[in-house]
Amino acid sequence: MINKIKGLIAAPNTPMHEDGSINLGMVPKYAKHLRDSGVAGVFVNGSTGESLSLTFEERIALADAWAEQCDEEFKLIVHVGENSLPNACKLAAHAQKIGACATGAIPPSFFIPGLKQVADWYRALAAAAPSLPLYYYHMPAMSRVNIRMADLFPLLKDVENFAGAKYTFEDMMDLQVALEMDGGRFDVLMGRDEMLLSALVVGAEGAVGSTYNYMAPVYTNIIGSYKNGDIAGACKWQSLSHKLVQVLNRAPSGLACGKAILTLCGVDVGPARQPLYRYTKADMESLKNSLAAIGFFDWKDGK
Amino acid sequence: MINKIKGLIAAPNTPMHEDGSINLGMVPKYAKHLRDSGVAGVFVNGSTGESLSLTFEERIALADAWAEQCDEEFKLIVHVGENSLPNACKLAAHAQKIGACATGAIPPSFFIPGLKQVADWYRALAAAAPSLPLYYYHMPAMSRVNIRMADLFPLLKDVENFAGAKYTFEDMMDLQVALEMDGGRFDVLMGRDEMLLSALVVGAEGAVGSTYNYMAPVYTNIIGSYKNGDIAGACKWQSLSHKLVQVLNRAPSGLACGKAILTLCGVDVGPARQPLYRYTKADMESLKNSLAAIGFFDWKDGK
Amino acid sequence: MINKIKGLIAAPNTPMHEDGSINLGMVPKYAKHLRDSGVAGVFVNGSTGESLSLTFEERIALADAWAEQCDEEFKLIVHVGENSLPNACKLAAHAQKIGACATGAIPPSFFIPGLKQVADWYRALAAAAPSLPLYYYHMPAMSRVNIRMADLFPLLKDVENFAGAKYTFEDMMDLQVALEMDGGRFDVLMGRDEMLLSALVVGAEGAVGSTYNYMAPVYTNIIGSYKNGDIAGACKWQSLSHKLVQVLNRAPSGLACGKAILTLCGVDVGPARQPLYRYTKADMESLKNSLAAIGFFDWKDGK
Amino acid sequence: MINKIKGLIAAPNTPMHEDGSINLGMVPKYAKHLRDSGVAGVFVNGSTGESLSLTFEERIALADAWAEQCDEEFKLIVHVGENSLPNACKLAAHAQKIGACATGAIPPSFFIPGLKQVADWYRALAAAAPSLPLYYYHMPAMSRVNIRMADLFPLLKDVENFAGAKYTFEDMMDLQVALEMDGGRFDVLMGRDEMLLSALVVGAEGAVGSTYNYMAPVYTNIIGSYKNGDIAGACKWQSLSHKLVQVLNRAPSGLACGKAILTLCGVDVGPARQPLYRYTKADMESLKNSLAAIGFFDWKDGK
Repeated sequence: MINKIKGLIAAPNTPMHEDGSINLGMVPKYAKHLRDSGVAGVFVNGSTGESLSLTFEERIALADAWAEQCDEEFKLIVHVGENSLPNACKLAAHAQKIGACATGAIPPSFFIPGLKQVADWYRALAAAAPSLPLYYYHMPAMSRVNIRMADLFPLLKDVENFAGAKYTFEDMMDLQVALEMDGGRFDVLMGRDEMLLSALVVGAEGAVGSTYNYMAPVYTNIIGSYKNGDIAGACKWQSLSHKLVQVLNRAPSGLACGKAILTLCGVDVGPARQPLYRYTKADMESLKNSLAAIGFFDWKDGK
Repeated sequence: MINKIKGLIAAPNTPMHEDGSINLGMVPKYAKHLRDSGVAGVFVNGSTGESLSLTFEERIALADAWAEQCDEEFKLIVHVGENSLPNACKLAAHAQKIGACATGAIPPSFFIPGLKQVADWYRALAAAAPSLPLYYYHMPAMSRVNIRMADLFPLLKDVENFAGAKYTFEDMMDLQVALEMDGGRFDVLMGRDEMLLSALVVGAEGAVGSTYNYMAPVYTNIIGSYKNGDIAGACKWQSLSHKLVQVLNRAPSGLACGKAILTLCGVDVGPARQPLYRYTKADMESLKNSLAAIGFFDWKDGK
Repeated sequence: MINKIKGLIAAPNTPMHEDGSINLGMVPKYAKHLRDSGVAGVFVNGSTGESLSLTFEERIALADAWAEQCDEEFKLIVHVGENSLPNACKLAAHAQKIGACATGAIPPSFFIPGLKQVADWYRALAAAAPSLPLYYYHMPAMSRVNIRMADLFPLLKDVENFAGAKYTFEDMMDLQVALEMDGGRFDVLMGRDEMLLSALVVGAEGAVGSTYNYMAPVYTNIIGSYKNGDIAGACKWQSLSHKLVQVLNRAPSGLACGKAILTLCGVDVGPARQPLYRYTKADMESLKNSLAAIGFFDWKDGK
Repeated sequence: MINKIKGLIAAPNTPMHEDGSINLGMVPKYAKHLRDSGVAGVFVNGSTGESLSLTFEERIALADAWAEQCDEEFKLIVHVGENSLPNACKLAAHAQKIGACATGAIPPSFFIPGLKQVADWYRALAAAAPSLPLYYYHMPAMSRVNIRMADLFPLLKDVENFAGAKYTFEDMMDLQVALEMDGGRFDVLMGRDEMLLSALVVGAEGAVGSTYNYMAPVYTNIIGSYKNGDIAGACKWQSLSHKLVQVLNRAPSGLACGKAILTLCGVDVGPARQPLYRYTKADMESLKNSLAAIGFFDWKDGK
């Protein structure tokens, strides 16, 4: 039986120097910032971490650097998805070796697989790190793999360490069906921060997201209010999350914008790597003003 | 100020004879069935009503037939959207004349409009029935008009009878933002039956849907449980709705399947019109078995 | 056996008054302009004619007005496609009554049909005007019906008056396969003006297009050069067509831009109807400059 | 000035063992087969080569193995595109070191870049192998980067070794415009084998494709007939190409089917790697029959 993951898991950005190389030295400070903000762990090398833009060696180095900061209380989940299955398997084996508590993987997204091909892929990947739970990373907007968890999970029932999904999509029916399937065996982690409340109400208990990098307390309040039966209160905090996500949606690149926000919050993660948009100083200034205009710096700490 | 619509509004199918002509004679029985099941009104000539497959004259005749069955307690909303603006305006004027309480309209979907063109269209349409609230019908999966209500509503602020949206989409952030905008001036009716609970929690109070044609009590229970603070109970009823929607999703045509289900529930609405799939007797038999297998006939009345 | 259509067929715009109503009075002048430019006929009420934005009555009136201008030498093809099959059938019957030489129809595009549903639709439509050849209007970019003619035609072999396709797509393999199928029984009219030469070389002999409204002689030269074995010469004329199409591609609406160009060429077809962009006087002035910059007014008459 | 590439370039499959590892030992035989069939070179590690499913090390090893088989007469082009720019640059530098005559690269396809981001990417990549011409690999169906060469090339005018494009798309206007731009400075290699004739007529002189792996002489005949002014003859050979491509289009995976065809032609390239479909013995038998049914084995050698 999989140990389900509860609470908020941040999907860290990959810290980079101005020249585009990765900045491992920033990881300890970044980890402390997250731990202090109340998140329960990190989902390293995910899409927010620009993993598909990194080399294999960079991903290994990042996983190692984060592993040093993690423990039972501050969980390490390593994203190992990529287009080459042998590479994905090596990344998974490495994650197991360094003591990660789980892996996640986006499906291959160049040759788009059908449902059966997806299942075969995850079967192979699960075998590469047999002692770690493996999460399917569902994000059809990026992966273009449009399948339902309700259809995928039954094909992977026999794979003991297949854990469920990180669900970065809006279909709350599929999420609920997947959570209730097979006696509740599978875990589904909500991946749309801006819809957290809508997911909690249908059974989600854990969440992985990029805005937990800099405003986790807001979401902690959503969960807290919800658990206390204070839906109106939860809604208020959720609507603050919307204000921030609207800034991301209007940005030239939501991901690059997220990095800039985190830098403005004191953890300098540098620019995004090509092909993403590179924030200029003027962009940073303008962003700061936009954030101030929505009161972000006042409420980001959940007070 | 718009009078917001609360509770469940069914989106009726258009009853048809075997030869594909419309069957107005079935409307009284159909209306009684809906009223008895607890729905608060009907959204006539919508996509579920196959309105885009109907002639102008058929739509007028259907609106007239439903108008006779409606009153203050059992609301008539007429969908007037179509690709030709002059036609849509005439349909709207007719809806006003026959005493509908509101209109709704899908945007033109052949020449896909940009945001400003959408706003201009609804401004013109609102003027054609100035005493009726007008709802934008947001269903990007069918209309291919991918805009956010959060972007549209501000452009229509000055149109007094622009009411808001029937929201057949999964983005609960956009729904919540739209509901909270401008002091809560706009109404947003949830249009994804299978995600009703996720919408209630972020503020929706009314809903328009096709499965309310034959299992409204299940959704009444979702709303009731939710209002009583019984989220777990609401979830249970929502998961029954999922069982039914999965049947629709696997059908050759969800719409044709919906008509067949309603026929099996005692209101014979006949086949769907071309280009939709036509259910055979064998299909009906097989559908009946699928419904029995999920217990549909036992729980559809919410008991 | 279908009489294949050869040469250039213009897809006329629908002339409109400033208030958006149709301007039937312009049809005679428009027809004379086209006849003088060397086109072999017209494809009335097509997508270029904004037919989906017109009412049924307007389409009838336009077909009637063009019928008066057409004869054996200047062919009338009436587009009758729309989302409602009964309407499409009535339009087809009317086309037959007024002496059109053929009909064309885009498939329904709200409820997207599968291959079999498409075939059933055209079977029904063909029966509504049994003495007229019927052309499938293939334009997946607008209709979202992504099928191959190579798959469709075999399903309609038994329909004597099913003629083939107006092919507004870029897949020259499908076009050639369709033309060669079944002993060359089917006609396929090229609908991408900017790729005329690439279609001629694989067997197309007729073409329907919107730029034939104002620069038919350029295309007549493409055909002439090609027939004379002067590929380089054909290429030169084709590249002039590209210069014009690039102007359309950069416009806020290619269709509205086409109307503006025709107006600048002396046939005042007025603005496009909502939801399309409406050209302002400033837009017209700027367009005129763009056209002058590419030398359009010098070479549009093929000299 | 770029030396334009003329004639047919095969895009080789990556030979694999039954266990999915790459089979470098097959390269010499494969190269001889291609050389004997009349192709002018190879485009190694492209999409047909499943490069996105390979590891970095595998791509290096394959490039090395092919480099040993290539010379002035049998050109080596190395595809170096991948989602990580540092990796792509290293692959490009390696291609230069081993004596390739050019590189090609698909744009990043996970984070979809805008036009400017694409240009920046190719500028960086060109600098990594400054003595080799670099081709943009345009295949929007796989890369989802929907830009026009007519828009991209002007942004890269100042990059001396930016050569043009491998154009795996159907828009013959864009291809012709790109070829004629800037005094014919850029090279555009046709990448849709089934539309070769339509590309030749608008100026293409080189082509890269996967079916040149096993039926190059058919295409040599297309080019030969075309150059001799025998369009009808060229069409006949092109229609044979269509027969084969229809087999690919109906296959569970066109790429896996292509590997199976090549194996049936005597070069055993083994199965495709996950996530692609794996051909069974029964599939192979059935494929052989399909190929025999279209006469493939009789005409593949162009006789």
